Amino acid sequence: MAHFSDSPTLTPIEGGVSAPAGFSASGISAGLKPSGALDLALVAAEAACPAAAVFTTNKVAAAPVIVSRRHIADMTARAVVINSGNANACAGAQGERDAENTAAVLADALGCAATDVIVCSTGVIGVPLPTDRLLAAVPEAVASLSPDGDAAARAIMTTDTVAKQAAVEFTCGGSTYRVGGMAKGSGMIQPNMATMLAVLTTDAPLTAEACDAALRAAVNVTFNRVTVDSDTSTNDTCVLLASGAAGGEPIAPNDARLIDVIAAVKAVAETLARMIARDGEGATKLITVNVRGAANDTDAELAAFAIANSPLVKTAIFGRDANWGRVAMALGKSGCELDQTRFDITFAGIPVCSAGQAIAFDEEAAFRALSSDDVTLEADLHLGGGEATVWTCDLTYDYVRINGEYRS
Amino acid sequence: MAHFSDSPTLTPIEGGVSAPAGFSASGISAGLKPSGALDLALVAAEAACPAAAVFTTNKVAAAPVIVSRRHIADMTARAVVINSGNANACAGAQGERDAENTAAVLADALGCAATDVIVCSTGVIGVPLPTDRLLAAVPEAVASLSPDGDAAARAIMTTDTVAKQAAVEFTCGGSTYRVGGMAKGSGMIQPNMATMLAVLTTDAPLTAEACDAALRAAVNVTFNRVTVDSDTSTNDTCVLLASGAAGGEPIAPNDARLIDVIAAVKAVAETLARMIARDGEGATKLITVNVRGAANDTDAELAAFAIANSPLVKTAIFGRDANWGRVAMALGKSGCELDQTRFDITFAGIPVCSAGQAIAFDEEAAFRALSSDDVTLEADLHLGGGEATVWTCDLTYDYVRINGEYRS
Repeated sequence: MAHFSDSPTLTPIEGGVSAPAGFSASGISAGLKPSGALDLALVAAEAACPAAAVFTTNKVAAAPVIVSRRHIADMTARAVVINSGNANACAGAQGERDAENTAAVLADALGCAATDVIVCSTGVIGVPLPTDRLLAAVPEAVASLSPDGDAAARAIMTTDTVAKQAAVEFTCGGSTYRVGGMAKGSGMIQPNMATMLAVLTTDAPLTAEACDAALRAAVNVTFNRVTVDSDTSTNDTCVLLASGAAGGEPIAPNDARLIDVIAAVKAVAETLARMIARDGEGATKLITVNVRGAANDTDAELAAFAIANSPLVKTAIFGRDANWGRVAMALGKSGCELDQTRFDITFAGIPVCSAGQAIAFDEEAAFRALSSDDVTLEADLHLGGGEATVWTCDLTYDYVRINGEYRS
Repeated sequence: MAHFSDSPTLTPIEGGVSAPAGFSASGISAGLKPSGALDLALVAAEAACPAAAVFTTNKVAAAPVIVSRRHIADMTARAVVINSGNANACAGAQGERDAENTAAVLADALGCAATDVIVCSTGVIGVPLPTDRLLAAVPEAVASLSPDGDAAARAIMTTDTVAKQAAVEFTCGGSTYRVGGMAKGSGMIQPNMATMLAVLTTDAPLTAEACDAALRAAVNVTFNRVTVDSDTSTNDTCVLLASGAAGGEPIAPNDARLIDVIAAVKAVAETLARMIARDGEGATKLITVNVRGAANDTDAELAAFAIANSPLVKTAIFGRDANWGRVAMALGKSGCELDQTRFDITFAGIPVCSAGQAIAFDEEAAFRALSSDDVTLEADLHLGGGEATVWTCDLTYDYVRINGEYRS
């Protein structure tokens, strides 16, 4: 877990989505993945609690997204059920019935309303969901619920190579609270108002409105700043559940304590977002793109995404080549306000371009610096105070291999 | 050369940029490429003639683009000089002086005004142009001018694997005219109002205004519909010179004969555009993306570009995998108006998705069809009459290899 310099009271702790009080989780195999790997995850609160969710902006929305949008409308939830191995997307009315049935069967087992279940799916698009197997596995998922979130984090993986969990603890207003989360990413990753799949939890006593505000504030500068391949999934969903189990007076949107809660949610979300970028399909490196000096923050974000999505930039970093002309190209095509006689560029801390022109630098030193698995590219446009950070990864042979073979 | 069903009077002919009467061309080695390969191309008319040019919209414009924008302002030109091996981009005031000097030295040799010379460069960004070598080679380039355009087409190549030329002949208003052209592409290719580098010529007696109208009409539906990797170069330039050497009354914008001329310019430009896509860096296939039934043409273009730029779609086609869910994803994220219960998708002529849902198809037959080096993806949105075609290529291991190693 990274150190959060702007929030000195946040202490990283072990665990993930079930680290906050009032939550349990499980991960089992429902037989959806041919390999027999874990493919059904469940996160449950002890009772229905305030919850918020954001979903993909893709106009082809998967059935679980359509169903979960309805279920979150009342701003409460008890559980999140996630299957991997099948996206249940482009599945028509049958897909929606499958997602509703999954919620209903789980709700019966937990003793809650079906509308208190959020349903998520991830995997291949356009293949019918083996619903019988999924429904048959729900009782085992409920029976397996425990304070350990590891199996759940593994059960949501597709082409991810590592499970992604994070949790922090902090004290505010005399109470000690926790925020935890898990996520999966890997490919088809440029979330827009949500990420592939992430479940965040807290035991802070947030009201539903505060829960929603905290989720949106965190997502906008974390999951929405990740791109692996510029492709926005049909299934992106990010949920925050607030059990309130740590006690204390309810925290509403106008409560000063919400600032600390948001910092904690951001910290967990940023950690998971960086994990998603680092574990992008085929990636060998996490690339952090920092743009500053832009005319405004929107311009900075445009510029940072143009750099982060450029296949030429991403392959150059894979090749450990300080080919900064490609960053200059990306700035120029991004649509941001730009003066080509002013911008500076650094690669891994090494200045390579000043006032829009080449400056001498040690190519050997640059090659060594770019050999790190954690590379930062910086551009200062010298036009104003706008800034943005976007996380991505390099584009490698393995991205092509993974996606040239995915369905086979 | 493709058959042009909408323009039955167009006859493909041998040659390229110097096929029309009144033009000569040359291609020599000026020593800019370490390999010693051809790297200096010249196209010259017998006298200054009506000309038009469109340039990159990248805000980081290379020095030759800045200089050529000034030189084309009077809508006349005598010659186009192109060096490969160095982009002369991010080169500041020295870069502009280098481009101006190149024009001046060539103008002296040809006996024309420096402003009648269009200068283009292509190659690596941010490395000083070896101007002395370039200027020293200009006399040889002039002495080598001949009716054969082959060497010029080869001298503008960078990572291109084939030279790209095309020419047609047609009769209108009792005169026989020719249109010819050459282009280079390969990487950093998603032109926006211009392409990487293309020089088109005609011996039709176009006025300057007709020349400009013909170029823009042709470029918008040809070069501007190509994408290799979504990256817009700093050097994109497309020029049309009209020698008038075939004789006949001048053709102004309101002349009915201009429709035939535009059809011929489009035919040559489309042929070159398809060649650029097919020869994209590392490509094994030309992919033609046809979107129809969109709410309008703008939406169709958005959707077609989203499909053509999706790394997931491009790797799937490389893998000969009819993974149509990725095309559905691209439609959904494109920003076009979409009803996810209506769209149909075909891969290489095989229907794979109907009304937004999977339909049974023969995977073996699809694999065989996608093994062709010429694959068409079609989407019908069933919303209106908008349509667009975009050409791209697959994303392969070799794209990563070429761009991970480019400067080394």
